Amino acid sequence: MSKLLIVGTVAFDAIETPFGKTDKILGGAATYISLSASQFGVHSGIVSVVGGDFPKSYLEKLNSKNINTDGIEIIEDGKTFFWSGKYHNDLNSRDTLITDLNVLANFNPVVPESFKDADFLMLGNLHPSVQMDVINQLPKKPKLVVLDTMNFWMDNTLKELMEVIAKIDVITINDEEARQLSGEYSLVKAAQKIYTMGPKYVVIKKGEHGALLFHEDNVFFAPALPLEEVFDPTGAGDTFAGGFIGYIAKTGDVSFENMKRAVISGSNLASFCVEKFGTERMENLQQSEIQQRLLQFKQLTQFEIEIN
Amino acid sequence: MSKLLIVGTVAFDAIETPFGKTDKILGGAATYISLSASQFGVHSGIVSVVGGDFPKSYLEKLNSKNINTDGIEIIEDGKTFFWSGKYHNDLNSRDTLITDLNVLANFNPVVPESFKDADFLMLGNLHPSVQMDVINQLPKKPKLVVLDTMNFWMDNTLKELMEVIAKIDVITINDEEARQLSGEYSLVKAAQKIYTMGPKYVVIKKGEHGALLFHEDNVFFAPALPLEEVFDPTGAGDTFAGGFIGYIAKTGDVSFENMKRAVISGSNLASFCVEKFGTERMENLQQSEIQQRLLQFKQLTQFEIEIN
Repeated sequence: MSKLLIVGTVAFDAIETPFGKTDKILGGAATYISLSASQFGVHSGIVSVVGGDFPKSYLEKLNSKNINTDGIEIIEDGKTFFWSGKYHNDLNSRDTLITDLNVLANFNPVVPESFKDADFLMLGNLHPSVQMDVINQLPKKPKLVVLDTMNFWMDNTLKELMEVIAKIDVITINDEEARQLSGEYSLVKAAQKIYTMGPKYVVIKKGEHGALLFHEDNVFFAPALPLEEVFDPTGAGDTFAGGFIGYIAKTGDVSFENMKRAVISGSNLASFCVEKFGTERMENLQQSEIQQRLLQFKQLTQFEIEIN
Repeated sequence: MSKLLIVGTVAFDAIETPFGKTDKILGGAATYISLSASQFGVHSGIVSVVGGDFPKSYLEKLNSKNINTDGIEIIEDGKTFFWSGKYHNDLNSRDTLITDLNVLANFNPVVPESFKDADFLMLGNLHPSVQMDVINQLPKKPKLVVLDTMNFWMDNTLKELMEVIAKIDVITINDEEARQLSGEYSLVKAAQKIYTMGPKYVVIKKGEHGALLFHEDNVFFAPALPLEEVFDPTGAGDTFAGGFIGYIAKTGDVSFENMKRAVISGSNLASFCVEKFGTERMENLQQSEIQQRLLQFKQLTQFEIEIN
């Protein structure tokens, strides 16, 4: 059984969409990534930090899905990272209302001994110095290191981010971020430029328009499943990343052919994430639902045509 | 050999993109549709109107591709429809600088006798009253009637447009237009609403994000090919429609399975159209290039995954 190490935020979110709003609920990149990866039965562990206000029941919820939380430091007299946002009517854009870093402000990640030999490493979206610190704590390079990041780190900590990018195998960013990072408008050219920074694989997420996987001269496209209702997009990108690395960790296969299946798996899981507020849908997701939707992805994309 | 009747504009375009600008060049929906459909060796005929200023050489160019121009009325003392536009830096949006309807303002379409038994009818984007006039001139309903239209007609001639929509089999519109026509934001719900207006098939074009084909509870997605350079998007939607109906006319098969191949063929041809100014790329396109790119579409979309 492969071991998957995940570093990222574990947080409280308060979310407002056109369909309703929540109080403080469970959120954070590492939470979504681990819940998504847990669908593949992999043994995963989170490195993160929370405050004394973080309910034990949330940790137990993760543990019940075979997610090890020994690497989640609890600062008893601190408060958990809190994010609040409000989505616009089209759900494609949002305003951040509150970002209280709290215990995240001085986070020094510690990889538990039992995960120092992780086969796979998923660096969720947070400060690149924290990501680098985790990379440096592993005595042996994992089989695959996947980085998720965002424009905030490109704007504010580009030097540190570039040092992390130089050390990873796969980067997942959205289309605007790929353009910002590369200075190229064409996503094909952007991916080629990003190869030169380190990653051999570039995954460009386009939200409701799907995701592109680039490797050398190859490109593969996974659509988003057209849905009748999108309820709350929070965590969709992290869920995609968790499905991607979860599928790879389960299969242990880092070939391009298998990464195609991994991006389909990521899109598949993300399509569930957006159907309810927060992590609710991911917590109660059944294997039969995932398999049924895989069939929909095949019907959505597969065709036979004669080529002369 | 199937006969394909195409109604639409034949025009002069003057185009400005970040990469350069043109004088008045050959343009118009029927032009792009017919050039695209001609790749499938179908026998097509255009119903349109031009002025005395329209070069005979342009008509001969179309004739050389087995496109019948007997239905293109020439108003000797009139001027050809002229459109001028300037694209923004991202090429996803444009400003119309000039729209001189000229001879199009009083166009009374006349279907040539030799095309009254057309097997397939493509109603290119123009006034719905002209589209309806052409439908009414055909003694027998073709095997498939495809309508392309745009928001301008929804804004200004909705009643006439709805009468046309009630009579057709396939509608092709972009995502924003689908939302406007249906009042639904979700494209799945939009397609379902549009079914109730008449069409059994709904094709939603998303430009660089591909196209969706809806029929009953089925949905199929054709991505746009990720390109290193997009030079001029003019005519891409018409070229897509021409590739769609051209493939169907060639195969004579109006099943959903075959329509999947048709939307892939449309995306394929549109990917060439945008590589040069105006019709240039479409005029010199080789079968071997099309076949080569079909292979790229397969590589871009096809995957094997175990479903339990």
